[in-house]
Amino acid sequence: MNRFSEDELVAAIRRLLSGDAPGVRLGVGDDAALVEMGPHVEILTTDLLVEDVHFRRATISARDLGAKALTVSVSDVAAMGGSPRFALVSLALPADVELPWVVELYGGLRDAAGEYAMSIVGGDSSRADRLIISVAITGEVAPTGAVLRSGARPGDRVVVTGSLGAAAGGLWLAEAQAPAERHEAAAAVVTPWGREMLDAHMRPVARVGEGQTLAQSGATAMIDVSDGLAKDLGRLCRESGVAAAIRLDDVPVARALGGLRDAFGLDPLELALSGGEDYELLATLPAGATATAASKMHGRFGTALTEIGEIREGEGLVAVEPDGAERPLEAKGWDHFGA
Amino acid sequence: MNRFSEDELVAAIRRLLSGDAPGVRLGVGDDAALVEMGPHVEILTTDLLVEDVHFRRATISARDLGAKALTVSVSDVAAMGGSPRFALVSLALPADVELPWVVELYGGLRDAAGEYAMSIVGGDSSRADRLIISVAITGEVAPTGAVLRSGARPGDRVVVTGSLGAAAGGLWLAEAQAPAERHEAAAAVVTPWGREMLDAHMRPVARVGEGQTLAQSGATAMIDVSDGLAKDLGRLCRESGVAAAIRLDDVPVARALGGLRDAFGLDPLELALSGGEDYELLATLPAGATATAASKMHGRFGTALTEIGEIREGEGLVAVEPDGAERPLEAKGWDHFGA
Repeated sequence: MNRFSEDELVAAIRRLLSGDAPGVRLGVGDDAALVEMGPHVEILTTDLLVEDVHFRRATISARDLGAKALTVSVSDVAAMGGSPRFALVSLALPADVELPWVVELYGGLRDAAGEYAMSIVGGDSSRADRLIISVAITGEVAPTGAVLRSGARPGDRVVVTGSLGAAAGGLWLAEAQAPAERHEAAAAVVTPWGREMLDAHMRPVARVGEGQTLAQSGATAMIDVSDGLAKDLGRLCRESGVAAAIRLDDVPVARALGGLRDAFGLDPLELALSGGEDYELLATLPAGATATAASKMHGRFGTALTEIGEIREGEGLVAVEPDGAERPLEAKGWDHFGA
Repeated sequence: MNRFSEDELVAAIRRLLSGDAPGVRLGVGDDAALVEMGPHVEILTTDLLVEDVHFRRATISARDLGAKALTVSVSDVAAMGGSPRFALVSLALPADVELPWVVELYGGLRDAAGEYAMSIVGGDSSRADRLIISVAITGEVAPTGAVLRSGARPGDRVVVTGSLGAAAGGLWLAEAQAPAERHEAAAAVVTPWGREMLDAHMRPVARVGEGQTLAQSGATAMIDVSDGLAKDLGRLCRESGVAAAIRLDDVPVARALGGLRDAFGLDPLELALSGGEDYELLATLPAGATATAASKMHGRFGTALTEIGEIREGEGLVAVEPDGAERPLEAKGWDHFGA
């Protein structure tokens, strides 16, 4: 049994989340929260993080986990071109979780809420045998400003923010630390490239400003890369009823993956194409719009925007090799049901 | 392994939830949902239902479970005097759950969404070893119309809608059916009173219209009875900084509990005071306002409104016996952590 009651947990969370925040009329502690909404269209999204499916308590700190739990939902709002506003956080807690751990988790949730100028206004809690974190967030976007997955048209260019694969590399390193026969991995995590990958895995960043810049730059479709470039691009194409060709040489592979290749022989391009949880934004822009968008994005946020291919008529994904040869690109990636 | 992929599950849910609905610009299938919000204040609330904590798959049908999962969150909106609008539903599914079961669950979610004129606009899914349902909903209320837990004042009367204890009786019957030595319970469930209690447990009703009527009648504080009358009244009093005295003779004990007393010796009053999940509304009204509110409520919804006590200065709960003697009323009830 946890050594705290539900009311004690709510009281602790309330103290953590106290303080006025813009738009919050009533936060944690009543039947529901009350918030003020503007004349914008509201964005609603939710994510479920399950212990031993999405994370292991042995390899991520409570604080990082809290921040990540909020960030992955914020990323969905970013992928619409919107601004996050309010969050509800529900926790299912196993009996071995103590209150200080929950307080640390909320510390991370608050870190991320501060980072994205959001307020956590409510939630629910229960016991369970695995830790589960369910986050629902609201956001807003101008009435005609939302960028859906379904607007890509033949001739559009495929662009992606930042670089890909580091989070998958970090996951590999975090997992590799567990088995005793992989002591080298423990050494790798203290290298700069190892640290960079672990950070990408533990503390992902949602590209909120970048999403708005892409929306303002005329993005026709957008999705965040949560389950891998190939899989998420496949989803965008399916929703838009189009095909896409990706130039493998242009995919912005995270530089840190070079260390993972040298030390363990892993393929950086494979991790960049199929590794999930990068939370970069994948978008389509009209031909000719990339340079201006990239310049704006770099000027505002220091974030790279790379053109990696184009939208075609038809269906499916094609990989274009450096020599121009084309082959089908399998939409591999993360599936929570492993089917 | 479940025999379906995440994308297949999303596609199935999308077909189930297709169709235009008021205010929904974009439903399931993109990064997030888009909904239109009016100039009202928004209500946000969420509930987490965990297998073997809140329900057992052996004793509740997928359809009832789906309806109940939504209804318990709607009840929180009702307890603010608001109207529910949109829902997000996340599912953690064990490997033995098949797609038809999930489709039935969504059938129940849709039943409830229809009942309360809501739209299910998104969600998330994952595998897990226990079934978990996380529902977040938004609602709206006029800018000055929300009734909080914190507004009760000494002299106010304590009122409750409907009757109490039937859901706890239904839970007892449902649980009692499992052990082989309790064959009588199986017989009891086919009696009218047994059926009524099981229905109260499996298919609770959220008192949305009743909550609005109480708000219009000047309710100073309100909460829904999810964890038991004594416990939830204790919360309302704590938030308001007041005490309350409850006349035991006036507590509207569900009539069906008479069957449970006669057949198994259970105490109906105890179930009414400490049994959870009735989802009736417990409110405080200024002295003299009950008769008009009760008449409006009966006229509009056929729902009873009973005055059961009054708010006093101080703290804590007091039970008033039929002979006028007073004793402390323990705030027993459901605690998800069992502490």
